[in-house]
Amino acid sequence: MERIYFDNAATTPVSEEVFEAMKPYFTEKFGNPSSIYKEAQETAGAIAEAREKVASIIGSDDEREIIFTSGGTEADNLAIKGVAMARKKKGKHIITSSIEHHAVLHSCEYLEKNLGFEVTYLPVDENGFVNPEDVEDAIRDDTILITIMMANNEIGTIEPVAEIGAIAREHNIYFHTDAVQAVGKIPIDVNEMNIDLLSLSAHKLNGPKGVGALYVRKGVKLIPQMSGGAQERKRRASTENVPGIVGLGKAAELAAENMEEKSKKMAEMRDRLIEGIEDNIDEVILNGPRGDKRLPGNVNVCFRYIEGESILLNLDMNGVAASSGSACTSGSLDPSHVLLAIGLEHEVAHGSLRLSLGAGNTMEEVERFLELIPGVIDKLRMMSPLYEG
Amino acid sequence: MERIYFDNAATTPVSEEVFEAMKPYFTEKFGNPSSIYKEAQETAGAIAEAREKVASIIGSDDEREIIFTSGGTEADNLAIKGVAMARKKKGKHIITSSIEHHAVLHSCEYLEKNLGFEVTYLPVDENGFVNPEDVEDAIRDDTILITIMMANNEIGTIEPVAEIGAIAREHNIYFHTDAVQAVGKIPIDVNEMNIDLLSLSAHKLNGPKGVGALYVRKGVKLIPQMSGGAQERKRRASTENVPGIVGLGKAAELAAENMEEKSKKMAEMRDRLIEGIEDNIDEVILNGPRGDKRLPGNVNVCFRYIEGESILLNLDMNGVAASSGSACTSGSLDPSHVLLAIGLEHEVAHGSLRLSLGAGNTMEEVERFLELIPGVIDKLRMMSPLYEG
Repeated sequence: MERIYFDNAATTPVSEEVFEAMKPYFTEKFGNPSSIYKEAQETAGAIAEAREKVASIIGSDDEREIIFTSGGTEADNLAIKGVAMARKKKGKHIITSSIEHHAVLHSCEYLEKNLGFEVTYLPVDENGFVNPEDVEDAIRDDTILITIMMANNEIGTIEPVAEIGAIAREHNIYFHTDAVQAVGKIPIDVNEMNIDLLSLSAHKLNGPKGVGALYVRKGVKLIPQMSGGAQERKRRASTENVPGIVGLGKAAELAAENMEEKSKKMAEMRDRLIEGIEDNIDEVILNGPRGDKRLPGNVNVCFRYIEGESILLNLDMNGVAASSGSACTSGSLDPSHVLLAIGLEHEVAHGSLRLSLGAGNTMEEVERFLELIPGVIDKLRMMSPLYEG
Repeated sequence: MERIYFDNAATTPVSEEVFEAMKPYFTEKFGNPSSIYKEAQETAGAIAEAREKVASIIGSDDEREIIFTSGGTEADNLAIKGVAMARKKKGKHIITSSIEHHAVLHSCEYLEKNLGFEVTYLPVDENGFVNPEDVEDAIRDDTILITIMMANNEIGTIEPVAEIGAIAREHNIYFHTDAVQAVGKIPIDVNEMNIDLLSLSAHKLNGPKGVGALYVRKGVKLIPQMSGGAQERKRRASTENVPGIVGLGKAAELAAENMEEKSKKMAEMRDRLIEGIEDNIDEVILNGPRGDKRLPGNVNVCFRYIEGESILLNLDMNGVAASSGSACTSGSLDPSHVLLAIGLEHEVAHGSLRLSLGAGNTMEEVERFLELIPGVIDKLRMMSPLYEG
């Protein structure tokens, strides 16, 4: 039986088309794009093309607004620390939410611990929504940055980013959004949404690991976090990862094609999964909202009385790859900060299962999974000292 | 006529063997190594194997001392800023040299400008050597880090790293070395040389762009520069670049095989190039030392009365890819800081040519180049207002 991969929010396979696009840049077209000879011009041109494709998928018409990085984490770090250091004379207050990815939360904590910044961590409601009014209320004279994610990586909540962007613009505060989970899944327009900085990652959209980008609106100042050569208009030193960048460009291009249609199909699978689980298993909690304000590929449920880890191991043995939350915190014994923030008790939060759909998934896999899961949960509950059936 | 690639210090092609090793990790073995299912264990295992190979090539017997990064620049930044921030209560003084790569120099400048550090930039002699006595003399009570490169990227000088390491150890000061140009070319033993931190990069040794590593001796504390997930034992957040890391491991393994023999052959080509240029062209200056204290693949000469840029363009038209110095500063109109530091006048420093040999070069190419170069220099000098023949 073919394995089912339901962990596309953790990472995705590089698609064949993306890999074909990258391939020549390893062994043949290998020139350092900063040099001046033929081999170098070839790769410099490939980077320019990728930059346009990435700009285009988020609605920027100026490819110079794209800085290539080593991934979403670096993009978040560069945005937050880079703006903080550039504006620290203006103020040292940052507003974020309590359900951000750790790349955002820990960048904020770094600024608190090491550089004397103050950070407001806004609460969210039971579905994971940040309230734009809370954002406005939290603004102080010394607020220099608001960073709120576009869509949550664990529970799929799509935040009211356009409203928050409008508030930030009105108060002349930079607005950053971690859009790692959203790019290629939902429409994004940095201009309409008043976004000043946006992080994205290639390996979440069938591109390669080790490459991402930060959109930086023209005129927004930041202090580079990687010091060295003059690459990326002196905003990010290091020899460019040419094949990676080409792969990101191609992945962005492909993700943009028929995005609406693909996301609609994914949402159908998502809703069938939710329905199938809720109809056939008792005492299940859906984490995150229903409908349009949820990422089309995200399902996150808690099964009372059992542990997420044991669900995952049982699913793995049954040929299904899934996650209990963020891959970045696996190995940690703490329950998810996201699930706690939406009000779950520790005990319940430990029993979470995230299923995240991708380009490769089919309704047939969904049905296969739905036949499997009640048995897995049943077996684990039978073994649980907490379950009284 | 086949083109000649003499810019291996800027970057190298990924070798076929390295590419073959990387290939499965793009489209097939793509699991996020932080997850717990089968697909993830596969990639976690591949990373562990690469970590051992990289540790081994620099004489570390503990693979946990290796942190994978996005390249040499990030490794330098993490070493310097990471140690500085971890030890700033002990002191805020750093010792480096005036001919370091910009990833080191600009990291030091970042600490001076933004965090109140003081940096001593040691001079070098006419061949680019740092004097270990100068290092010792520069040590203060508040010195927390010495960072001196293992081999210079422009003029190939191999620094007396073991002596400097011994001094650093004696004074209980951490010692970092940027070994990006040295790894795989000359023998390195972090224990014998008393190195506490060492930067290396994959794309300089026929591995992929976008990946490198920092060796950090057990017990050496640093503050992570990339905040986020728990990857790399919490010292470098971000989803691991699995194919890149596998490629670096394979490239390190291959570079270690018969290194002495390969370097000897390269040194023969280097010496033939130097001899051929000096014998057939007047008013040439060799930059950097002769013999064993020069990187086996490095040639750097200045031709009086002409500009490096025009030499490169003419060579390119004649099928040769070469550089005037570091690729990272191309586009800059300033002469090389390295050539100025060894005492060249601005005017002379502008006429530099760096030829850097790699695994793919042959003596036949060397001879072909030697037939070509006198004509190129002659033609340019004829056009130069400074030249009086």
